Amino acid sequence: MSLITVGTMAFDAIETPFGKTEKIIGGSAVYVAYAASNFVKPVQQISIIGDDFPEEEMADLRSRGVHLDGVEIIQGKKSFFWSGRYHEDMNSRDTLVTELNVLADFDPKIPDSYQGAEFLMLGNLAPKIQLNVIQELKQRPKLIAMDTMNFWMDIAMPELKIVLKYIDMLIVNDAEARQLTGMFSLVKAAKSIMAMGPKFLIIKKGEHGALLFHGDDVFYAPALPLEDVFDPTGAGDTFAGGFMGHIAKTGDISFENMKRGIIVGSAMASFCVEKFGPTRLKEITADDINTRLQQFKNLVSFDIELV
Amino acid sequence: MSLITVGTMAFDAIETPFGKTEKIIGGSAVYVAYAASNFVKPVQQISIIGDDFPEEEMADLRSRGVHLDGVEIIQGKKSFFWSGRYHEDMNSRDTLVTELNVLADFDPKIPDSYQGAEFLMLGNLAPKIQLNVIQELKQRPKLIAMDTMNFWMDIAMPELKIVLKYIDMLIVNDAEARQLTGMFSLVKAAKSIMAMGPKFLIIKKGEHGALLFHGDDVFYAPALPLEDVFDPTGAGDTFAGGFMGHIAKTGDISFENMKRGIIVGSAMASFCVEKFGPTRLKEITADDINTRLQQFKNLVSFDIELV
Repeated sequence: MSLITVGTMAFDAIETPFGKTEKIIGGSAVYVAYAASNFVKPVQQISIIGDDFPEEEMADLRSRGVHLDGVEIIQGKKSFFWSGRYHEDMNSRDTLVTELNVLADFDPKIPDSYQGAEFLMLGNLAPKIQLNVIQELKQRPKLIAMDTMNFWMDIAMPELKIVLKYIDMLIVNDAEARQLTGMFSLVKAAKSIMAMGPKFLIIKKGEHGALLFHGDDVFYAPALPLEDVFDPTGAGDTFAGGFMGHIAKTGDISFENMKRGIIVGSAMASFCVEKFGPTRLKEITADDINTRLQQFKNLVSFDIELV
Repeated sequence: MSLITVGTMAFDAIETPFGKTEKIIGGSAVYVAYAASNFVKPVQQISIIGDDFPEEEMADLRSRGVHLDGVEIIQGKKSFFWSGRYHEDMNSRDTLVTELNVLADFDPKIPDSYQGAEFLMLGNLAPKIQLNVIQELKQRPKLIAMDTMNFWMDIAMPELKIVLKYIDMLIVNDAEARQLTGMFSLVKAAKSIMAMGPKFLIIKKGEHGALLFHGDDVFYAPALPLEDVFDPTGAGDTFAGGFMGHIAKTGDISFENMKRGIIVGSAMASFCVEKFGPTRLKEITADDINTRLQQFKNLVSFDIELV
């Protein structure tokens, strides 16, 4: 089964209470690819970069089964760049620099070799671009999942609401779910979002885990309690990549299998935050992943005894 | 097995975004008793009230197996009174009125009939009072659990740290764990607290569930996602009451059984917030509790599939 992932490939410069980096690679599609490629091949990447994006990073992705035919390289221009500083609680951050560069002209094209993919992960991009990608696919994927953010709710809510009618699953954080619906209760917000189109909804709550909604069903995935969150950059995209990687590997879009997927996503995100950028994701092995999955199982396993 | 619970029996007047109450009964020992008495009898209450505390409320508690020999009634004085207003997020509140009344002179005595109890729940009170109770017990209980709050950390930290050496389990919320240790990471805060005395620690995170720590073991209990939290007053005490009720019922203080206890506590707390004060706790049946426990089981149950 193949997975198309659409998003940014970029440079980030990050400051956290633990240290700071020079420009390192990042971008939603990079994190999705590093997470998903542990579970499914090929991961078919759609993105745009300048001529400054390192060839060795492209080679590393290729060696993991990531196809880059859909990555447009613009000569003489620079890749998207973001720089930010996290606060002590690691839940909030200040953006220091945003240079759109090539991203300003992103008009994704689907290579013929990607047509027929069964799974699609739309990273956080302008709703108009997300809709274009869906409409360029000749065969509708089995599952279309999508990320978005408050920025698009502020400036492009009508377009965002149109895309929501075309997708199967929305993946947002708690603040975004509240902004999208104007509802404080996440259970009410979830019902409201599912009425907008997506039959499945994941609400990410950072260190408090994630909720999966479908009809009247709900599943609560914990986050692993960590001594330190070293750098949260990319954790949300890594979560989505792990989730979609598991779903694409199994080809099973039942609620039961999505529960497993959300645990896989949470496990991958728990690695991501251990080092700067995608560093830790590049190091981990299948054994590391299996050990972490077992930790998640132990973390929430209990018997009940009725009264 | 019997459980001694020490805490307030009081009046509360509560405002939430959903409405407001006149004076209704409340207090930590009341919530603990309503929760715990579903699982263990007797619950042996230690508290202090004025002559205004309604006899029918005392009768209701007695009918549930709550012993009130340890409740001192001061004629001509009033019971403790608290009034507060919750903000829209239900996680923060303003205190409007605090009238200590009889609580200013609380010097708990253990009735002879309570001596030999195997479990002790020390509600949030001055550390000096909590220590007195422990020292008045002729036989050390199998498990001593204790609540506290930021107020005592502000004005009585040295005394609080002394009591911590005498107890087995501390039950606090995330903000309190951080204040007690000066550490932001809850995992680090947990290690630091366990080094202060208690071998077991529960950190409550409100709508985000609760964490149980013991040595290197950790367990994550979810909170039930609710459409509305109608009134959070007493939810923390109800949680503690459900937990200690289960532990006292089973007599088993293993980590595995504490996991079950924390789920029982979470289930009881999820009822508490459905109506004002202890109203909902008075209504529920064993069937209601069993149904809710099964919901918790479903909420977090998943299989893992290794890579």
